Amino acid sequence: MIQVAVNGYGTIGKRVADAVRAQPDMEVVGVAKTSPNFEAETAVDKGYPLYAAIEDRIELFDDAGIDLAGTVDELVAEADIVVDACPSGIGADNVAMYREHDTPALLQGGEDADAADASFNARSNYDTVEGLDVVRVVSCNTTGLSRLIKPLEEAYGVEKVRATLVRRGGDPAQTGRGPINDILPNPVGLPSHHGPDVETIFPDLDIDTLGLKVPATLMHMHSINVTLADRPSADAVRELLEGESRTFVIPEHLDLDGAGAIKEYAMDRGRPRADVWENCIWGESVTMEDDDLYLFQAIHQESDVVPENVDAIRAVLGTDDQTASIETTNDAMGMGL
Amino acid sequence: MIQVAVNGYGTIGKRVADAVRAQPDMEVVGVAKTSPNFEAETAVDKGYPLYAAIEDRIELFDDAGIDLAGTVDELVAEADIVVDACPSGIGADNVAMYREHDTPALLQGGEDADAADASFNARSNYDTVEGLDVVRVVSCNTTGLSRLIKPLEEAYGVEKVRATLVRRGGDPAQTGRGPINDILPNPVGLPSHHGPDVETIFPDLDIDTLGLKVPATLMHMHSINVTLADRPSADAVRELLEGESRTFVIPEHLDLDGAGAIKEYAMDRGRPRADVWENCIWGESVTMEDDDLYLFQAIHQESDVVPENVDAIRAVLGTDDQTASIETTNDAMGMGL
Repeated sequence: MIQVAVNGYGTIGKRVADAVRAQPDMEVVGVAKTSPNFEAETAVDKGYPLYAAIEDRIELFDDAGIDLAGTVDELVAEADIVVDACPSGIGADNVAMYREHDTPALLQGGEDADAADASFNARSNYDTVEGLDVVRVVSCNTTGLSRLIKPLEEAYGVEKVRATLVRRGGDPAQTGRGPINDILPNPVGLPSHHGPDVETIFPDLDIDTLGLKVPATLMHMHSINVTLADRPSADAVRELLEGESRTFVIPEHLDLDGAGAIKEYAMDRGRPRADVWENCIWGESVTMEDDDLYLFQAIHQESDVVPENVDAIRAVLGTDDQTASIETTNDAMGMGL
Repeated sequence: MIQVAVNGYGTIGKRVADAVRAQPDMEVVGVAKTSPNFEAETAVDKGYPLYAAIEDRIELFDDAGIDLAGTVDELVAEADIVVDACPSGIGADNVAMYREHDTPALLQGGEDADAADASFNARSNYDTVEGLDVVRVVSCNTTGLSRLIKPLEEAYGVEKVRATLVRRGGDPAQTGRGPINDILPNPVGLPSHHGPDVETIFPDLDIDTLGLKVPATLMHMHSINVTLADRPSADAVRELLEGESRTFVIPEHLDLDGAGAIKEYAMDRGRPRADVWENCIWGESVTMEDDDLYLFQAIHQESDVVPENVDAIRAVLGTDDQTASIETTNDAMGMGL
C-alpha cells in the first residue's frame, strides 16, 4: 500500500485525501493543517491522523481540544509521497522540506511551473513523470483544457486553440471575493496565464487564452474554439468526447442549462460534496464551422484535479501504467455522470 | 426641423427622445406609452407631448391624472418619421400602421431583420437606407460588433470574426431576470443570433458567435478574436480604434477594471443616466498573435444604439450625409469619453 501524506487539508487536500482512501493500493498516512477549523475537526472525525502544518500553532489545536499525531515534518518522513495542497505559493516553499526527506511530492496548479520538475495531466503526459522528485498537477482550468485538447490532437490534429475562460469569482465559501454585478477582464492583458500553463503540458501547442471573472461561484465556463487540422463532423467530435472517461457530454434531454443544474445533478447522484470531476461539455454546443470546432464546457474548480492527483501518485512512483491507473482511479471514485 | 415621433418610451425610447431633442435639426413631436408609470410622468415633466400607445388604456392615464395629447395614430400622422422603441415583437406588429400613414419608421434590434426593409449601423452602411420605409437599427451587441469590424475591414481586411458575448442577465431595473450565481451558455447551440445579425450589416462576413449570460446588469462584455488579412502591430490597431468617434479605447492609467468603474466614470463625467454610448475597448487587451487580433470590449446595452437611431433618421430621410450626420449627432450628445 502506498503511504500518502496530504499537506494542506483545505478545498483540494480534503478531497484528495478521500479519493486516496478510496483507492485499493493507497492509504492516507496523515493530513496536515495549519489551524483547528471545521476542516480539522472533520479530518479527525474521518479518522485521518492529523498533523500540525506549522509547529508554532500546536497550542491552537490543544486549546481547541483536537489531538495531533505530530508535526508535518514527521508526517513527511513517514510517507512514500506527499500531496501538497497548501495555498498557492506555500507549496513552492515546502519543496525544500520534501527534498530534505527525499519524499517525492505533488504540488498543485497554483504554484509556478518552475517550482516543480514537471507538470502533469493524466490523459496527456502520464508517462513523463516517473521517478521525478516534484511534480505539479496543473490547475482546474488547465486540466479541463488538457483533457479536451489531447483527444482532439490524437484524432484530428490541432492547429490552434482560442479559449475565453469565464471564471467564477471565488468558491462558494470564499465570502470575501468578488466581483459583484460585474464582468471583469482578468487579466486585461493577453494572454491569461492559462495559455502558457497549457503549454507546460503541450509544449508545441499554439494557444491563446482570454480570462474574465464574473459574480458566480459554482463552476468555471470555457468558450472554446479549436482550429483542427482535419474536418470531422460535429457528431464525430461529440462521439470522440463521449468516449473519454473524464468528459461528460451533456445530453440535451437532461435539461442542464448551467452550473447550478449540473451541481444539483451531482448532488442527486450522491456525489461527495456535489463534486463534478468531469469536464462538462454541452453536446448541443459542439459545432464545426469549416475547420473550426466550437463548444462550451463547465469546469468544477474544486474537484476536477482530484483524480489527476491520484493518478500522479502512481505515475511518479511508477506503480501502474496510464491505462491501469486511470481505470483504477475512476472505478474507486465512481467517475462518470 | 424634422418632426420625430417616439413610439415606446422605455429604456431605448426615452433615451432616443432626449438625444433627438438635443439635435439642431430635429424636434420631438411626441412620445407614446402604454401605461402611466414613472416614465410617463417624467415624459410629461420634460414637456414631451404624451400619446396613448393603446387606445383601450386611455382611462388608466386619466385615472393617474396624466394628460394625453392623443393616441399613437394621431402621433404617427403628425410625424415625419417614427422611432419605434416598443418591446421586441411589438415593433413588427406596428409596421402596418406606419405604412398606412406613409410615415417612415425605425425599428429596434429586438425585431427580426425581415420585419424591416434593411438593417442599419451608422459607421457601416449609412448610405444604403435613404428613402426606405422601414429600417431596423441593429441591437446593442450588433452595433458594438459593427463599429469594431468596419474600421478593421477598411484598414486591414477581415478573414474571420470569432466572438464570445458574455451578456448581462438583465438591465438594472429588470428585477425579474436571472441568472443568479451562474454562467449560462445562452443559447447552448451555435451560432448565437448575433453572428447572423452582424451579417445583416456585413453580408459577406465570416463570423461565429457564442453567447453566455451571467449575473451582472451593467454592460455586456465581448471577448473578440478577428483574424485579419494584414498583420498590423497592436499599437497600429489601438491607434486605428482611438481614431473612431464612437469607440473609447480605455487608457491604462484611468484604472477602469470593469463595467462598474466605467459607469462610475460616466456618472462623474455628467453623462445622462450614466450612459456609455461608445464601445469601451481596453487598450491593454488589444493584442496581435500572428494574424489574430484579440481584445475585450464592454457594451452598454441601454444606450449604444441611441446615436445610431439619431443618424438613422437623417439617413432614411436623406437630409445629411454620413460624415455630417455622425458629427452633428456626436456634437449634440457630447460623444467622447
